[in-house]
Amino acid sequence: MQDVVLELRQRGIRVGVVPTMGALHEGHLSLVRASRECCDRTIVTIFVNPTQFGPGEDFQKYPRTLESDLEAIRGCGADIAFVPSHEEMYPSGFSTYVEPPSVGARWEGECRPGHFRGVATVVLKLFQAIPAHVALFGRKDYQQCRVIQEMVRDLNVPVEVRVCPTVRESDGLAMSSRNRYLDPRDRQRALSLYRCLSTAMEAVAGGQRDGRLVVEAMHRTLRDGNVDRIDYAALVEPETLQPAGHLSRDVVAIVAAFVGTTRLIDNAAIHVPE
Amino acid sequence: MQDVVLELRQRGIRVGVVPTMGALHEGHLSLVRASRECCDRTIVTIFVNPTQFGPGEDFQKYPRTLESDLEAIRGCGADIAFVPSHEEMYPSGFSTYVEPPSVGARWEGECRPGHFRGVATVVLKLFQAIPAHVALFGRKDYQQCRVIQEMVRDLNVPVEVRVCPTVRESDGLAMSSRNRYLDPRDRQRALSLYRCLSTAMEAVAGGQRDGRLVVEAMHRTLRDGNVDRIDYAALVEPETLQPAGHLSRDVVAIVAAFVGTTRLIDNAAIHVPE
Repeated sequence: MQDVVLELRQRGIRVGVVPTMGALHEGHLSLVRASRECCDRTIVTIFVNPTQFGPGEDFQKYPRTLESDLEAIRGCGADIAFVPSHEEMYPSGFSTYVEPPSVGARWEGECRPGHFRGVATVVLKLFQAIPAHVALFGRKDYQQCRVIQEMVRDLNVPVEVRVCPTVRESDGLAMSSRNRYLDPRDRQRALSLYRCLSTAMEAVAGGQRDGRLVVEAMHRTLRDGNVDRIDYAALVEPETLQPAGHLSRDVVAIVAAFVGTTRLIDNAAIHVPE
Repeated sequence: MQDVVLELRQRGIRVGVVPTMGALHEGHLSLVRASRECCDRTIVTIFVNPTQFGPGEDFQKYPRTLESDLEAIRGCGADIAFVPSHEEMYPSGFSTYVEPPSVGARWEGECRPGHFRGVATVVLKLFQAIPAHVALFGRKDYQQCRVIQEMVRDLNVPVEVRVCPTVRESDGLAMSSRNRYLDPRDRQRALSLYRCLSTAMEAVAGGQRDGRLVVEAMHRTLRDGNVDRIDYAALVEPETLQPAGHLSRDVVAIVAAFVGTTRLIDNAAIHVPE
């Protein structure tokens, strides 16, 4: 793979990479399309990365749908699918990891200890194995995007990271490979995350500038929607992911909650007029 | 720098990089010559990397001799000197590190906590900033070479690591930037490290296969040479750096000791006939 990409580069061909864990949906395919717009060749990687799952998380049951993934990749015009084995990615004796940047400390970092260490490590490995010009990620995983952006800056990785908009179902649910875990009743309750973000947007649009009160309203919306556990709901600074108190600049509303045994996350940028 | 190297690569020009902390000596220059033999362009980096020094170590007083370094680099035909500032390497907010591979756990890893984390981080950064075809390191820092080789393998870094022989003074002392700390009396005592390695080689050549007895002889040689503190003297497996008990395969003798306030290290490959 490395040789192929280095040779493409040497021929002046611009390469885009879309790292995924498979179980592809419209969100992933929008990344492939965005890559095709800015690059000559698009590589999609499919690897369910064990090091980013904690004990008791859904690594074993994570959906694996390789055949239909490959069909979807072909269908939207990607050029190469890179599907490494576990042994290729983590050979015997593997022991080097990336300690993720501080922007990964809170939220997902607290709820899923070790998650961003696994993400940073596998993404750095993919950026080395596939030295592409551009790498594309979905904004649904907002904190992950920030972790990758900071890692790329800190470690001088020669790749341009592009963050593309969250793709949603018609009723607002953010697309996620984990949505296929939801039965019809859970699918309804899962909308609470989107409603929680809408609550925050409406409160700010209505003039509310006390972050604490907005966050209380977000929690109320989640409880009213009968989610099973709230991991967090917060308003944070877009760069640092530190909680925003008085709202004087743009923020990001972030939320993570369980619906049944399915853990879902979502986020929304909120414009705060000066 | 990155743009320069990527453009060289795109033109099919082979690039070698020699990462250093400056205070260049014949050992460094031998790496430049080795690079010139296998590459079209050679880049020498000079950066005294703060993150690989522990508290109480010699970061502040580490020799900085930029003018004569640049002259030496020019003199032996390197093409580019890369001398980044602290702010370029560690901008405000820097917080991503490389957790070094397990081969860095013992020896230097125990005596200098955090040292290999700093080494692995800065070397990975340099490999990204300067995406060279080949990187050259001196074997004097044997464990460091193994840490870098394992890191490159684990993280799929697209660079070939070449380890070049230790360059020695005529009496056997391994060349090191820290040798210039030594006054004439300490310079004599510093030879104990080389004698310690010779002791090990002679013992094995004489048929000794009990690693424990060889290591005892190594310690005796150091004590007889009046070093001020022995950090370690050991026989280790070349790949894993685990201590060798019964000697049935090739090993590496490694030693670290203080002469005055100067900490010196050295090593030697020892062939063990089957």
